[in-house]
Order: sequence, then structure tokens, then C-alpha cells
Amino acid sequence: MNAEIISVGTELLLGHTVNTDTAYVARELSTAGINLLYNCTVGDNPERLRRAVELALSRSDVLITTGGLGPTGDDLTKETVAAAAGKKLVLDRESLRRIEQYFKGRALGETQKKQAMLPEGCTVFPNDCGTAPGCGFTTAAGRRIVMLPGPPSELIPMLKNYALPYLEADGHTAIVSRIVRVFGLGEGSVAERIEDLCASPNPTAATYAKEAEMFVRVTARAEDERKAAELCGPVVGELQKRLGSYVYGVDVESLEEAVVRELSKRRLTLATAESCTGGLIAKRITDVPGASEVFHMGCVTYANDVKTLLLGVPEQTLARYGAVSEQTAEAMARGIRERSGADYGIGVTGIAGPGGGTAEKPVGLVYLALCGPDGVRIRAMRPTGRRKGRGYLRALAASNALDMVRRSVLGLGGVEEAAYTHEKKGG
Amino acid sequence: MNAEIISVGTELLLGHTVNTDTAYVARELSTAGINLLYNCTVGDNPERLRRAVELALSRSDVLITTGGLGPTGDDLTKETVAAAAGKKLVLDRESLRRIEQYFKGRALGETQKKQAMLPEGCTVFPNDCGTAPGCGFTTAAGRRIVMLPGPPSELIPMLKNYALPYLEADGHTAIVSRIVRVFGLGEGSVAERIEDLCASPNPTAATYAKEAEMFVRVTARAEDERKAAELCGPVVGELQKRLGSYVYGVDVESLEEAVVRELSKRRLTLATAESCTGGLIAKRITDVPGASEVFHMGCVTYANDVKTLLLGVPEQTLARYGAVSEQTAEAMARGIRERSGADYGIGVTGIAGPGGGTAEKPVGLVYLALCGPDGVRIRAMRPTGRRKGRGYLRALAASNALDMVRRSVLGLGGVEEAAYTHEKKGG
Repeated sequence: MNAEIISVGTELLLGHTVNTDTAYVARELSTAGINLLYNCTVGDNPERLRRAVELALSRSDVLITTGGLGPTGDDLTKETVAAAAGKKLVLDRESLRRIEQYFKGRALGETQKKQAMLPEGCTVFPNDCGTAPGCGFTTAAGRRIVMLPGPPSELIPMLKNYALPYLEADGHTAIVSRIVRVFGLGEGSVAERIEDLCASPNPTAATYAKEAEMFVRVTARAEDERKAAELCGPVVGELQKRLGSYVYGVDVESLEEAVVRELSKRRLTLATAESCTGGLIAKRITDVPGASEVFHMGCVTYANDVKTLLLGVPEQTLARYGAVSEQTAEAMARGIRERSGADYGIGVTGIAGPGGGTAEKPVGLVYLALCGPDGVRIRAMRPTGRRKGRGYLRALAASNALDMVRRSVLGLGGVEEAAYTHEKKGG
Repeated sequence: MNAEIISVGTELLLGHTVNTDTAYVARELSTAGINLLYNCTVGDNPERLRRAVELALSRSDVLITTGGLGPTGDDLTKETVAAAAGKKLVLDRESLRRIEQYFKGRALGETQKKQAMLPEGCTVFPNDCGTAPGCGFTTAAGRRIVMLPGPPSELIPMLKNYALPYLEADGHTAIVSRIVRVFGLGEGSVAERIEDLCASPNPTAATYAKEAEMFVRVTARAEDERKAAELCGPVVGELQKRLGSYVYGVDVESLEEAVVRELSKRRLTLATAESCTGGLIAKRITDVPGASEVFHMGCVTYANDVKTLLLGVPEQTLARYGAVSEQTAEAMARGIRERSGADYGIGVTGIAGPGGGTAEKPVGLVYLALCGPDGVRIRAMRPTGRRKGRGYLRALAASNALDMVRRSVLGLGGVEEAAYTHEKKGG
């Protein structure tokens, strides 16, 4: 079954509203084994909507519309779709009763009543969180049409409780997706290592870049969910083999979540001493619910004297090597570890730009140190020659810091490839 | 000029990614006076993409594609669009040079080189934040085609710096936009106060909600830029009058930028002591280039004993009132101010959820204290009854903290309206 979504609403074309409905409906369709091939957005314009509906009915088995079912003059979806599908609108008494109940005691305007007019013979989807009902019906040519309201608070429960059961009544494939998350390899390097897997039709594998990280999504289709999951398994395993320790997790939310989980499992704690990342590492760790088990303390030591005051970084170290140096990063990591009593201490210092760079210490140079039970690890991020923004450099530095913790906790080696880092291990 | 966007990417049709690119491009087109009539999303499928492109070229003056320009085998947009438009792809040496520079020192794979193949005779849009360049060209039939990369971090600067100027090159109206930024009023309250201004056709005014903040975009069209700017001026002034001290800036990037600028102007400094925000306030302040002038030190005191160790919060205060209390917030603010020697100290403690709430201290309860030269300000954020996520609550708490600093530095009163806060001032 191939499906198409038509999103109706001028606000979407003006960019006033981000179309989150489509992503939600798409996910649910995919889980239900229905292939979504197109999504089209049109404004509140009956002529363009009609043409979009006609096109959809000519190429898709299932058409789902979102939006335009409400009481205002702009809401034209039902009228337009019904006309294109050769259906009459008739009053649905039960829907009218529900709308009257919704406005308990208040007189109902004609515009409100309009919402109870639905295509003849359709299956009505009650709106449990608003006024406009949705509906589903089959056209003379055998196309299935489902109409849903636009507000996510109404669409989500209606899709789940009424529209999906309606559509699944004759579905026969299930889809399962798994996500392999990667840090330390660029999109090109990942793609080269797994090119053949990405060419497979089922399961499919596709790479996505996301800030300083990457992920590979594996999606399998089969007659039921168990079989789809079984198809995914070996591909996920192969990805893990080929991408090795660059994979930080499968089906996890983020690198920070993976780190918090690994620390938590071993009852280990972590403390942070940040200069150029300015609190971003602590922020990312504490984004994870339950982070308080593994994270008790962080310091943002933006000024030199604060590095000495809070972390005990020797003034001589700062004077001799500078604030942005391997030595200062290491002293910060040692300082926060001793101060906090945590198992691991992270120290990060660098130049995030746009100002502050010199020929010797350019924007993009960042030193990271991790002080843990097994000694000290150092990583250096060097500018790639490519101008990256302050935000990206900080995100990359934070991800590198989290990656160092992960590798240390799991007893993995440092990164081999990525040109912007080198790593040494020492006592 | 009528435009259409084709978003390319199977991840969009699987619902794995919410299509935020379209909303961004749509807003910018609308500001540039270009009518967006359709947005169509297709997967990484050359046949369906070709048909979508042909349809777009048959009905729209401008076609903008997003996504599918990268190095992987899935990235087929350029090949498909060029074929549909009757253009050959040729190697663009400057783009190749830039990609080589990006990977400085590493050998370039064939997949990376593919990105430098562009339609013959096109205007190249350099990718300042990634590898895949975009481009613009006109077809034999006079349709204009613009291709942009999918990742927002690459698309946004490319659209702004290269694609919009390219599209505007033969427009004859100038467009000027100004943004009035607001914190502390909900979208409904802002809309009510400025309803009449939002109804005007030129300049237009439109409100947008963004996490815990709001902004109003004023856009004027005129024959030249000076005249458009002159039209904007009075509307911006009227907005400032009606929204009063809730306006934290006009044409500034963010609340943190406004705060850093105001502190910097007065040579004042700020230090942070964060519990539930976990480094987010420090992170936001240090997002602003040049923050080191006003921000030297921050502490993330996630555990109770760390609040005592680093900030000197009395153990009795913690025992008597609890970690989430006005008293603890105040002791944190005093502690960090004394410890750092900064002019202002912020203390934040609360329950960001999802766990950790009790009947007496529910998720969403946050206390903020600001200790400054003129005494102490306290603000409490109370749950609104609406279930909000951890990320939102943390963002709102951080924005409230920054707003308190702004109001104190500027000598403004506390917030009057917003139901979730109250404020007291004391010595």
C-alpha cells in the first residue's frame, strides 16, 4: 500500500508553523507497514487543493489529509476532497450531537455545525480533544481517503485510536527501524565503509549527519514485526563490526545518554571543568533524566584566575604553557577530579572563536583531558582549515569529551582516524 | 513570482526527521515577497523525484530543492534535477578545491568529489559550514531552480548569504525585516496587544513563539531599502511602546546576547550557580562571542554537598528548607557572587523532571535568585498544570535567570503578568 499525505494550511506555506503532523503521521504509517511516497503541502486554496487531491488519487492507494476541517471559512478540505472523490457531504447526527455537547449550553453557529457535514457513507473518527471529526472512506476507484484535523493535540489521538485501526484493517506488512549512532567518523568515511549495505533494498541502511555526529538507520519490512526485527539484526551487527568502536550506541538518544548509562551501570561518577565549552558538557549530561546519579559537580572556569582558584591549576602552568594547552587541560581535569572526588574529571580548554585566535593558537584549537582511575588521556582538536562556527566547534569539543569518557569507561582505545584529533594515554 | 519547495529525503517520509527546513525557507521567501504555493516531499528515489521536479517546473516560477546534495549514493538531487531541466553536470574546480581544503591532508574519495559536480553555467553557492555546495540556475523555459543542502546548519547560512541575494537579484522591491524580541509574555498576550498591527499589509507584523520566548517580525516592502526601513521604524517603535519592558531587544540574536551586551557596556560581571539548569545558563552566556569580558566563573552544583563545598550554602539551609527552595537559591546566588567577586551572582534550583517531583515540590517548580549591587531578587517558576518536558522547563528557567539580570542591570521592575512567575525584591 502506497500512501500520500496532503497537508492543508496557508500557515505552513508562510513558515509560521513547522509541519510536525507529517513526521508523526509518517512514523505511524511506517510502523503500520504503509509506504509513504509523497507529502504535499498546499494553502487554503480550493483550486490548488483540488489539483493536489486529483494527483494523489492518480498515484497513491491511500490519501491522508491533515488540516482544514475546522469551522472557519478557510477550512475547505472536506468540501474539496469529497467533490474530487465524487462524494456528497451529509449531516452526521452523532457528530453534531458531540459538537453541541462540546459547547454545552451555548448556541451553535452555522460554522460550527458545518463540521458535522461528512462524506456520505464514511467511517467517522470522533474528535476526543476538539470539535471537528475526521473520517475515512473508499472511492469508487478503490482509493482510500482519510481526513484528519490539523492541531497535533487532536490529530495524534484520532490517528492512533481511529484512523490507524481503520487503515490497518487490511494491512499486511510491518516495518522495524533501528538506529546505529556514530561519533568520530565523517559522513563520507561511514558511507565508504558501508556502501554495499546502503544498496540493499530490504533491510535498507541510510546515513544521516547531525551536528558533530552521525547515524545510520536500518529499516526492514516483513509480514510481521518479529520477522522485520529479525531482518534488522544481522545488518545492525555488521554495521557495528565495520564501524567498530566509533559506534557509541544502538537505539540510544544521544552520546550523553550513552555516557550517563555506562557510568551509571558501573556506579562511576564524572565531574567537568570547562573553559571554551562554557557549561555545554555539563548541560548535555544533565539533559539526561537521572544524570544526578553520575554527575554532582561541574565548574565553568572561563578566566585564568578562576582555573587556579577553583581547580588549583598552577599559575606556572598557565604562565608557561598558556591557558589553551595540553598541560592546562590536564591540570583542570586533575583539579576537578580531586576537588569533586568523582571517578572521572574532564578538563577542556580551547579557542572557540570567532576572536581570540593567533597564528600559534588558532580558532578551533581545543585540548581535552580526561583524568580517571586508569590515568590521563589527552585529545587535541586542531582546526581543519575549514571555517566552522563557534557553535559547531563547541558542540564538537563537547562530543569529543563525552567520547573520551565512553572510551575510557569501556576500555577502548583512542580514535584512529579523524584528522582533527590525536590521542595519547599516560599515567 | 510563485515558488515551490521540493524536500528530498526518505528520512522525512519515514518521519525520522521533522522538516524544519521548509518552515525556514518559507519564512524567508515570504519576507522576500515570493509566494510559496506548494511544498512537496519525496524520498531518495530518482524516478519519483524526477516526476515531482517536472510537475514543479510546469506550475511554478521558482523551484527550491532541499537535501540530497551530499556525498552518499542516496544523494541524487543534482543528477535528477539537472536531467529534468536539460542541464549537464560539470566539475566546478573551485568547489572541489574547497572540499579538498575541508579535508586537508586526507585523500578525497570519489563520493566526496561528486559533490563538486554542478549544473553547467549555474551560480555556485559555497557551503561555508559543510562540504556540499548549492547552486542556482535558470532553465531554457525561464524557470529558476535553486538547490540547497538538507542540514539546517548548512542550509540556513547558504540561503541567507547566497540563495536569497541570487533570487532577489532581479526583483524590484526592497524588503527590510526587523525583529522585536520578547520574554515574559505568552503568544496570546502578545497577539492581543498588537492585533491591529498584525492586520496591516505593509509593513506586516507577525508573531512567532520559540521555546520559552517570542518574537515579532516586522517586514516592509518599498522601492528601495531606505524607504522600506523608514516604513518599519514607526511600527517597531509602537511595538516597543505596547510591549514595554517585555521587549529585551530589537534585531539582537538572543536574550543572552542582550544580557552580555548590557553588562559589557557597564563593565559589570556575572557568575552562575546552577542546579536544575545544569550548566545551561553558562552555556548560553558563553554562546555569545566575547562573553569572557563579563563572565569568568560558573558552578554546576548538582549535588547538595557540592552546594555547600563550592558555594558555602549552609547545611542548615538545605536541611531546613530543602535544596529546592527560595532560601537555597538565595544562598547559592550569594555564594557564587562572593566566591567569584562578580557584580552579579545567579542561583537556580528546581525540579526539571521527569522524576523527582513530590506533591509539595512538583516537577516544574524552580527558584531563581539574583544577588547584585542593589540587593537580592527572587523569582519562582511554578508548574502551570500543563505538562511540559524537561528541556522546555530548563530553557524557561535559564531565560528567566537571564531576564532577571537584564531587568536588574537596566533598573526595570519585575515581570507583572506571566502566571508562572512572581518576583520580590529585598536587601
